[in-house]
Amino acid sequence: MHKIPHTVINPISSLNLLSQVEIEGLTASRGELYTLFRNCALAILNTDSSKDDAAEIYADYSDFDIRVVPQPRGLRLELFNAPGQSFVDGRMIRGIREHLFSALRDIVYTDFKITGVQRQPLSPEQITNTVFRILRNANLVQPGVPPKLVVCWGGHAIPREEYDFAKQVGYELGLRGLDIGTGCGIGAMKGPMKGAAVGHAKQQIKDGRYIGISEPGIIASESPNAIVNELVIMPDIEKRLEAFVRLAHAIIVFPGGVGTVEEVLYLLSILMHPDNANTLPLIFAGPESCRGYFDELNGFLETCLGPEVRDYYKVIIGQPEEVGRAARKAVERVHNGRRKSGQAYYFNWALQIDPSLQEPFLPTHQNMAGLNLSPDLPRDALASQLRRAFSGLVAGNVKAFGIEQVRQHGPYRLQGDRRLMQSMDGLLRMMVRENRMKLGECAGSYQPCYELV
Amino acid sequence: MHKIPHTVINPISSLNLLSQVEIEGLTASRGELYTLFRNCALAILNTDSSKDDAAEIYADYSDFDIRVVPQPRGLRLELFNAPGQSFVDGRMIRGIREHLFSALRDIVYTDFKITGVQRQPLSPEQITNTVFRILRNANLVQPGVPPKLVVCWGGHAIPREEYDFAKQVGYELGLRGLDIGTGCGIGAMKGPMKGAAVGHAKQQIKDGRYIGISEPGIIASESPNAIVNELVIMPDIEKRLEAFVRLAHAIIVFPGGVGTVEEVLYLLSILMHPDNANTLPLIFAGPESCRGYFDELNGFLETCLGPEVRDYYKVIIGQPEEVGRAARKAVERVHNGRRKSGQAYYFNWALQIDPSLQEPFLPTHQNMAGLNLSPDLPRDALASQLRRAFSGLVAGNVKAFGIEQVRQHGPYRLQGDRRLMQSMDGLLRMMVRENRMKLGECAGSYQPCYELV
Amino acid sequence: MHKIPHTVINPISSLNLLSQVEIEGLTASRGELYTLFRNCALAILNTDSSKDDAAEIYADYSDFDIRVVPQPRGLRLELFNAPGQSFVDGRMIRGIREHLFSALRDIVYTDFKITGVQRQPLSPEQITNTVFRILRNANLVQPGVPPKLVVCWGGHAIPREEYDFAKQVGYELGLRGLDIGTGCGIGAMKGPMKGAAVGHAKQQIKDGRYIGISEPGIIASESPNAIVNELVIMPDIEKRLEAFVRLAHAIIVFPGGVGTVEEVLYLLSILMHPDNANTLPLIFAGPESCRGYFDELNGFLETCLGPEVRDYYKVIIGQPEEVGRAARKAVERVHNGRRKSGQAYYFNWALQIDPSLQEPFLPTHQNMAGLNLSPDLPRDALASQLRRAFSGLVAGNVKAFGIEQVRQHGPYRLQGDRRLMQSMDGLLRMMVRENRMKLGECAGSYQPCYELV
Amino acid sequence: MHKIPHTVINPISSLNLLSQVEIEGLTASRGELYTLFRNCALAILNTDSSKDDAAEIYADYSDFDIRVVPQPRGLRLELFNAPGQSFVDGRMIRGIREHLFSALRDIVYTDFKITGVQRQPLSPEQITNTVFRILRNANLVQPGVPPKLVVCWGGHAIPREEYDFAKQVGYELGLRGLDIGTGCGIGAMKGPMKGAAVGHAKQQIKDGRYIGISEPGIIASESPNAIVNELVIMPDIEKRLEAFVRLAHAIIVFPGGVGTVEEVLYLLSILMHPDNANTLPLIFAGPESCRGYFDELNGFLETCLGPEVRDYYKVIIGQPEEVGRAARKAVERVHNGRRKSGQAYYFNWALQIDPSLQEPFLPTHQNMAGLNLSPDLPRDALASQLRRAFSGLVAGNVKAFGIEQVRQHGPYRLQGDRRLMQSMDGLLRMMVRENRMKLGECAGSYQPCYELV
Repeated sequence: MHKIPHTVINPISSLNLLSQVEIEGLTASRGELYTLFRNCALAILNTDSSKDDAAEIYADYSDFDIRVVPQPRGLRLELFNAPGQSFVDGRMIRGIREHLFSALRDIVYTDFKITGVQRQPLSPEQITNTVFRILRNANLVQPGVPPKLVVCWGGHAIPREEYDFAKQVGYELGLRGLDIGTGCGIGAMKGPMKGAAVGHAKQQIKDGRYIGISEPGIIASESPNAIVNELVIMPDIEKRLEAFVRLAHAIIVFPGGVGTVEEVLYLLSILMHPDNANTLPLIFAGPESCRGYFDELNGFLETCLGPEVRDYYKVIIGQPEEVGRAARKAVERVHNGRRKSGQAYYFNWALQIDPSLQEPFLPTHQNMAGLNLSPDLPRDALASQLRRAFSGLVAGNVKAFGIEQVRQHGPYRLQGDRRLMQSMDGLLRMMVRENRMKLGECAGSYQPCYELV
Repeated sequence: MHKIPHTVINPISSLNLLSQVEIEGLTASRGELYTLFRNCALAILNTDSSKDDAAEIYADYSDFDIRVVPQPRGLRLELFNAPGQSFVDGRMIRGIREHLFSALRDIVYTDFKITGVQRQPLSPEQITNTVFRILRNANLVQPGVPPKLVVCWGGHAIPREEYDFAKQVGYELGLRGLDIGTGCGIGAMKGPMKGAAVGHAKQQIKDGRYIGISEPGIIASESPNAIVNELVIMPDIEKRLEAFVRLAHAIIVFPGGVGTVEEVLYLLSILMHPDNANTLPLIFAGPESCRGYFDELNGFLETCLGPEVRDYYKVIIGQPEEVGRAARKAVERVHNGRRKSGQAYYFNWALQIDPSLQEPFLPTHQNMAGLNLSPDLPRDALASQLRRAFSGLVAGNVKAFGIEQVRQHGPYRLQGDRRLMQSMDGLLRMMVRENRMKLGECAGSYQPCYELV
Repeated sequence: MHKIPHTVINPISSLNLLSQVEIEGLTASRGELYTLFRNCALAILNTDSSKDDAAEIYADYSDFDIRVVPQPRGLRLELFNAPGQSFVDGRMIRGIREHLFSALRDIVYTDFKITGVQRQPLSPEQITNTVFRILRNANLVQPGVPPKLVVCWGGHAIPREEYDFAKQVGYELGLRGLDIGTGCGIGAMKGPMKGAAVGHAKQQIKDGRYIGISEPGIIASESPNAIVNELVIMPDIEKRLEAFVRLAHAIIVFPGGVGTVEEVLYLLSILMHPDNANTLPLIFAGPESCRGYFDELNGFLETCLGPEVRDYYKVIIGQPEEVGRAARKAVERVHNGRRKSGQAYYFNWALQIDPSLQEPFLPTHQNMAGLNLSPDLPRDALASQLRRAFSGLVAGNVKAFGIEQVRQHGPYRLQGDRRLMQSMDGLLRMMVRENRMKLGECAGSYQPCYELV
Repeated sequence: MHKIPHTVINPISSLNLLSQVEIEGLTASRGELYTLFRNCALAILNTDSSKDDAAEIYADYSDFDIRVVPQPRGLRLELFNAPGQSFVDGRMIRGIREHLFSALRDIVYTDFKITGVQRQPLSPEQITNTVFRILRNANLVQPGVPPKLVVCWGGHAIPREEYDFAKQVGYELGLRGLDIGTGCGIGAMKGPMKGAAVGHAKQQIKDGRYIGISEPGIIASESPNAIVNELVIMPDIEKRLEAFVRLAHAIIVFPGGVGTVEEVLYLLSILMHPDNANTLPLIFAGPESCRGYFDELNGFLETCLGPEVRDYYKVIIGQPEEVGRAARKAVERVHNGRRKSGQAYYFNWALQIDPSLQEPFLPTHQNMAGLNLSPDLPRDALASQLRRAFSGLVAGNVKAFGIEQVRQHGPYRLQGDRRLMQSMDGLLRMMVRENRMKLGECAGSYQPCYELV
């Protein structure tokens, strides 16, 4: 493992105007805030690594250290034993350097201006306001730019042909002048950016945006890929999801695992809210090989949310150019809508997001068992309940807290309407079959973390 | 009086990214904050007016109104009965429009981020931090720019030949690539900017800066002149003075009245502080006709602060080119000093400012009588006491509070060392003689607002 | 007289990409081309001088020299005994430096690409093509910019109140976003630029254009003023006039002498050409004191060219704001016209200019006597003949060739229709009365260089 | 085959400022100049096609037409039956549009300013001057930019692993801030650009240059790849080669066929000229699989030009990062050298190019037989003779003229020193073996177009 024993870097842009109080606050904190920043920094420096196991990365680089050094004119970062792949001839790659300071910027801002000041739990409006302020501070919201951001979701560990398809879609989006936002890892998060970069080059677009939106709990397993040129670290999953949907002018979902289904349910819960009709176009896309995947997913969604759920998204199989064309048209529709109603282009203030989607969901066995998975609920409320169920499955599958819960108390027990449970079971089995669930060492012997009652 | 009955304007740059919470806060407040903004706005719109009597302006435009109108994408301003001189063929002059939104920006920022959050009185470090944050929010501090800001002080109602001299000095500064900062009114605050604009044009400098630093209590009587291209409204006199000295790379003082002497004493109190040696060059300049003025001022300063006071400034009479050369050299010295010590160019964090200079001084008779004007004080402390004395004289002369105090209780009574009092008396008499004190209607019958005991 | 003994300057932009063949050609030529460049350079360096007598300037600076020094990467200029007013602290003012290289650029280009290649006299189309190519090479024609160039003509030695009026008009033009083009000397050529600079500043227009169009025969007596930021040297008077009318989107004429009348007649000859209807708006403007001047001029024009001549221009007396408004509207009309017809904005290719206006007129007694000043001619042809008559008067008054002719052969003898001659006589007498003719040492005893027969 | 029946495009930048004379000249010419432009245009529109047989392309698109349409403001292009792959949703890709107008620009310029004016054959200095003027007109020479252009040569039909290696090298060059120039086709001409684009993105370099230098005889078989963002069409092979070596700050040669050997000999003839010592670094690079290729090439070069030929280049096998590092260092050496000697960075005026390398070589049997391939010649002269021999082999292999010569008169007969001939034979056999010679339909039965006597 190649490591750079010691290096010092200067900020590139925004951070050299910290006030002395801010610098002192930052350098004084060697506790929680420091650990948070160190871990994000390590994840960023670990760029292009094939490892996505945070624990392993932390072990490999246990001697890594990063220090914020106050300077009369601003501050510097001093690094010890940083991963070598972030350097060229001993100098840190500029994109990585930007990412480091972006992380510092967001962590500082969130701590100083948001967390450090707040006393009570935030109201829904305040949560939205917080999301906006973090994005504004990161220069991610830009006035005067016509709508063109397509957010792409999907799995990070996907087969080659799905990756190539995502890249091809990105190329078609780039050729049509569209920008890309993703969760900033690899797989379906990298492919569209890489393709769009070539499309932008052919159209001589020099200011193409490749926006990565991450959060501290996920950045280690999903190092920002090298093409991201705007990185923002949101404080938690829910604010990250809200950032996606308020920034996006259209969303494309590629095949993925339970995490992707969680995102789809989050989005459908919003889209099926009566006030949000037609405000955010959604496309499901994949290569021919994924036809079965989407059939299963469609079936599940129709069973749970009724056949009218199909009005909220479009499925395009095996035709990347058609995806590009559909996305372009969808974005134009959004453009017209926003112009007519006088809405901002850069942030979808008008989108109604139910408080149940903004609050973190803690997947204890009690909370999981208490979910109301009944067809009698309004469609958007049911989608929100289902989203929590899948959020729990993600946790039981890959997150420290959920894994520990399952180890202690056995599989989660989900109960609900029978047809609905069966449909969910079918979807999950397909995912296991297609290796879309993260498995332990002995693949094949997948032990589900849930029982459907 | 030409008035524009109704007009609506959109923000130009920074303000269209307010969050909805900020917009609501702003538009909800029709009280104190609103009055503050309305008065600043009227002063700005009253550009180029020869009137400097705030009360008269308010009377002329009692039907003027300005409303902050929230919009889906940001906000607009709606104006009623605005002064016509701010418009060309019915469209507001862009510079004026910028000034309006600058004022709104600073008032919002100060209220939301500073006053609205603070609970206790600020410590000296916090005051400096506040000054920095307001300037940073106004984009007035800019990293990566070499030192070149010359702050010019002096009277606003001055004879033609002094105005022409100030303009000539500005021309020489502009030819040497220096920028100008002033209190942003007319007279010695406008002349240097106007001259510098021509100097910059000859040197093909397109980004010359003409910075105006005002505060709510003074803006009405000193409408920002038209050449100002960066305007900031500080919350009070003391923060405005601190903004000047922390931003400046050199300061030139032209002849003025008691207000100018107050500024000179403020500055000398800082410069004579042992930690601040040689960090901020100071030049007194004027045409030949002002030789007597500066002799009197020098005499007063030497009597009070000792002959060594002359080490802290340079006097140049009748040679604008020489002033330009001296300022250029002084700025280069500052540049070298800051580079060697690694200090920021854009904000003089290192300058020590005594807390007595940061605190507002309330000119009651008791406070004035209690000033310690004794030669036994350290020089910088005595300068600070003298500065308060002149601050009181300014108030008694032109500010509502001071005038009322004098009306009720008679002239202020200042007491102190005899030689010192005599010297001050000489200086003040000269100012009356030269019409540098604002007089009531019947000039000649000047009734001083003070007695030297 | 302050002179800079020796200095070396580097080119700023365009000239550092000369090919080696071009550099050699340039430095080899110490003959005619060199003298031309030296004289232009001296005129440029003599900026802001009050002297307008070329011979006197040449005498003062007989020891001035300028050399083109080839360099591996381009070329430099080496100057000896240059006028000191072009320098600040030993460094040449950047605007002056630009002007020097502009002159070199135009002289090189004209010689290499135009004169050096041409064998026969040029056809009218080729003359227009030459004018375009010189302007294109000087970057004066710019695609994609909406029409906004107002050309201002008028006298260079004018009374203060006319200068102030021209400045005020420039201010109103600048406030309306219009650019200025003039013959680049002082008086009515400097005033509008100076005013526009302030207007542009208030509108925060940073790329305002102050275009000076000169030619070698006139530059010495009309040093480019300091505000000119684009200078072009056309090869002769006729191409200079053609450059003006093909670049202009509107023309304003302030009061002037016989030269100004020559320009007015040149322009009316074009405007009255049947193909040119309404393509180039013309405004006569001056302060109240000039009412008589314009009455006389109108009378003369109506007598010669018929009352319908008044359809081709508008007279505005004493209302600078009204001039600004009228110019703005006129430019908008031109904008609409060009857009509808698909004409270029940057060069008026469609304007028909009669060959008689493109050919130089040599004012010998024979040529002057042979002019056909008859009301039977078509209006535009008569205007062209009259223009030649005034061109001769200008020469007899101030140009070396004409003065010598008159010295040898006595006054020019002009003959023509009696009413027309009387009217011309009235106009000329008024100009003598108002000191608008350049007079010899003993003013008052003006000896006219003409007899009207 | 997807074709776009009809489309009209507007110029993007430079071409809208043609004078009317230029536009007329261009649109009048439907003869030779038109055919030249039509063919170049078709080649450009045929982007990304796998076909490299010009005749086949012309046949597929025999109904393709392109017309230059004069407009009042400039000109437009009207296209009929253009290849569909250049369009997205009916709009031409902007990069392709730029390439079309670049071709038009260069063809117009060369014809109007160079060929149209020249009467006699050009002297060597004039040839160099012509090369410079075409590049300057294309904005390819840029002042004030530090040296960073690496020219890459090599085969266009190469195996995947060589392509991947070239891409990897490009990535390492891009990471080091270097720009790429190539002959603008596919294979070793596209790989480095594609890699550099990713490297530049990681370093956040937005103005990376991907320069393609083509000529009419080669563009059809080597369509400019999509990443080229600056395209120039030189009039012939020799000027194209001269453009490469005068623009380059270092050259990398990847494996190729006889064309690549021709280029290597051209370059060595220059480098071994005594006046050119150390002015242009040269690196041979390839993956491990090419070790044998370079051994054979080295052997041939040493046999012909002596062992000291190895001083003029460096061979790096299988280490792309090392190639990047070596190129970076080489470019820095060039930078220092040019700075010290005051040479231009943008064009290597100082490089001595022998007239024999500037003159076109016509490969008749007589000319081929007359080549002097003797070890007694000075090294650089022998390299020039060998270059002509390989130029003939290229022609006999793939160019219409050469193929026809060989069909009529049998194989070329080359004679010379025996060791030298044997070494050449070995090199050529290796190339046949490795499929680096373009073969007819029945591969394996390669009939060489030469006999070594």
